[in-house]
Amino acid sequence: MQCEIITIGDELLIGQVVDTNSAFMAQLLLEEGILLYQITSVHDDANHIRTAIDEALQRSEIVITTGGLGPTKDDITKNVLCDYFHTTLVEDDTVKAQIESLYRDRPDVLNRLTATQWLVPANCTVLPNRVGTAPLMMWQMNGKVLFSLPGVPYEMEIAMQEQIIPTIRHMIEEHVLSFQRLGQNRTLLVAGISESALAIHLEEWETALPKNLHLAYLPKDGTIRLRLDAADEQALLDRKFEELQQLVAQWLIMTEDKPLELALGERLRAKGYTIATAESCTGGRLAALLNAHPGSSEWFMGSVVAYDNQVKRNVLSVPAEVLQTVGAVSEETVKAMAENVRQLLHTDMAIATSGIAGPSGGTKEKPVGTVWIACATAHGTHAECFHLGRLRDQITQCACTRALIMALRALTI
Amino acid sequence: MQCEIITIGDELLIGQVVDTNSAFMAQLLLEEGILLYQITSVHDDANHIRTAIDEALQRSEIVITTGGLGPTKDDITKNVLCDYFHTTLVEDDTVKAQIESLYRDRPDVLNRLTATQWLVPANCTVLPNRVGTAPLMMWQMNGKVLFSLPGVPYEMEIAMQEQIIPTIRHMIEEHVLSFQRLGQNRTLLVAGISESALAIHLEEWETALPKNLHLAYLPKDGTIRLRLDAADEQALLDRKFEELQQLVAQWLIMTEDKPLELALGERLRAKGYTIATAESCTGGRLAALLNAHPGSSEWFMGSVVAYDNQVKRNVLSVPAEVLQTVGAVSEETVKAMAENVRQLLHTDMAIATSGIAGPSGGTKEKPVGTVWIACATAHGTHAECFHLGRLRDQITQCACTRALIMALRALTI
Repeated sequence: MQCEIITIGDELLIGQVVDTNSAFMAQLLLEEGILLYQITSVHDDANHIRTAIDEALQRSEIVITTGGLGPTKDDITKNVLCDYFHTTLVEDDTVKAQIESLYRDRPDVLNRLTATQWLVPANCTVLPNRVGTAPLMMWQMNGKVLFSLPGVPYEMEIAMQEQIIPTIRHMIEEHVLSFQRLGQNRTLLVAGISESALAIHLEEWETALPKNLHLAYLPKDGTIRLRLDAADEQALLDRKFEELQQLVAQWLIMTEDKPLELALGERLRAKGYTIATAESCTGGRLAALLNAHPGSSEWFMGSVVAYDNQVKRNVLSVPAEVLQTVGAVSEETVKAMAENVRQLLHTDMAIATSGIAGPSGGTKEKPVGTVWIACATAHGTHAECFHLGRLRDQITQCACTRALIMALRALTI
Repeated sequence: MQCEIITIGDELLIGQVVDTNSAFMAQLLLEEGILLYQITSVHDDANHIRTAIDEALQRSEIVITTGGLGPTKDDITKNVLCDYFHTTLVEDDTVKAQIESLYRDRPDVLNRLTATQWLVPANCTVLPNRVGTAPLMMWQMNGKVLFSLPGVPYEMEIAMQEQIIPTIRHMIEEHVLSFQRLGQNRTLLVAGISESALAIHLEEWETALPKNLHLAYLPKDGTIRLRLDAADEQALLDRKFEELQQLVAQWLIMTEDKPLELALGERLRAKGYTIATAESCTGGRLAALLNAHPGSSEWFMGSVVAYDNQVKRNVLSVPAEVLQTVGAVSEETVKAMAENVRQLLHTDMAIATSGIAGPSGGTKEKPVGTVWIACATAHGTHAECFHLGRLRDQITQCACTRALIMALRALTI
């Protein structure tokens, strides 16, 4: 059994919107052991949508479409599906009651266009959408199933978690869908070695892997995720993953596949520590990462974004002489930033960044991409200099990654 | 003439990576007037890649693949293309020289795995990749062309800008590719009205639009982008876009399609103003947005992320009585935050946010999603309360959008 996603919307094909929905859905499907075979993005065009659905249903047992379910004229998915399944739109009282209850909480009135949202294809099953007005539609035929979801990310997310995945599970239990569980995988994260050097280091071991095991390299922001996939359910996965850990021990950051900031948050919470950041080149991005996940207020206190040197001096008390003599991008400055923000915000730990994100501002001694990062704790302050590429976005992203790794390591020692 | 993108990589189909490449490529193609017909994401699997290429080349004149060009075993695109185009790998001296020159700047050694990167299919044209080791490959056949690019975003970006787009332009000029320029489009941004209410407001005008014009609604974070597409090159686009502006004047934010922070930055620069932020619920995200683009150091000074109340008191001097009586999520607190960060960081303007991002922390009076935003200038301080949904990520994103709009408006008055 395999699944496909079809994302519908001109905005995807003119680059006005990045498709973040597919990755979210893919993760949930993977957790269920379901292979996502293909993702196809198509225009808001009746023929194009029909062809994509047809082809996907020929290849795969589960097809999920997202998008094109709004109340405005440019959204045509519901009508295309009506046509595809030879049916017409009818009023659905349950959907109507749900939309009316949604509007009780809203300041705006329920107008006649929104009222078209409770018109649904007569022969589909409607699943409840508790956060939006678009109906979640389902059609079953010959051991296959098609779901149509809205493209608004949080509506799609809640629909997947609360409706689609439980429905698929139920259909597998009831043998409506035949099912062979996908193999599992384990992922670990390393840093401090290049992809090709790592591949050479692992070559002998990788070549000797049994045929049903497969290693994937995912380089990102100066780290590499190594994912070991098992073709069948368990195989030797755990034992081989154990071996892999030993082989990469000197570069190993963690043996789970989770965002670094989440791993750091867990360690901080376990130790009862708090953290703050002082940011120049990362400009608040590190702080935003640290509080992206629920519960971060337990251990994240705040940040001083000192983009301008005046802020480094006045708020973070970096001595003017330091800024004048060795400059903002220096060991002295970044250490002072970390130590002083730790004092100012009364935290156990602080991380600071100062670098040249470009495109301008580079010199021969400190080219674009030069970033100093420091981590201060009660035991002292550690600082390191990195060279993180040439492009602004890449530099600030890599700087955040390096800063998180430095903080994680400081907590492990 | 139309184009298709095929993104190759298991990581896309297990949700380990979000495909940001396609949107970037789509934007560049649109600027050239080239229709991107479809995006297809496939596994690192020879049959799957071959089938996807075959189908795309049947439908479209230009096919661009990304991914699978790394030096490790899991990357197979180059070998699949060799097989597809009935050829073998040969050493390319130009690619070799390019890779060797790249490594002169790098701390790590050029190892034998990296050396496999200068093996390229004998019958392809290689375009130079000045930032990475993967060759940019091109095949031409019967008025069609296939490009194969690396999946690493910054390598792909530079390849598209410096090599692929100029090559396509040249092929159009030389009539190697037949070409009919896509219609153009214009986009404006509104806020303060729901999608359905706006559609009803515009209904009569939209229904009367000539057949070759088409209006699309793109709601996001409490704003709506209205995109007017013209099927042929110019049509009545400009005149109708002018009419549309008049019709939505009361909710209009801007008549260009650019990120709000970029529009704000341009207005700040034009006026010679500087800005700072004081952030509670947005946690640094607003600051990170403001300095995401080059040149922001001219007008963005910094930020105090006061996630914890202790930081609001000690660093931002919000009076303890205010925090005790009306709380952190209040008009008084957010105004004090904006005014005090403006003083502390010596800026012309400051924006502050304080709200309940959830999932916990909500009360009956201040449910999750309640966000106060203030904007302080030399002319005074304005504050507003918003209700921005129920989900953490949605709330902080919408809060950033509202804050940017408030600052933009303060500059327009």
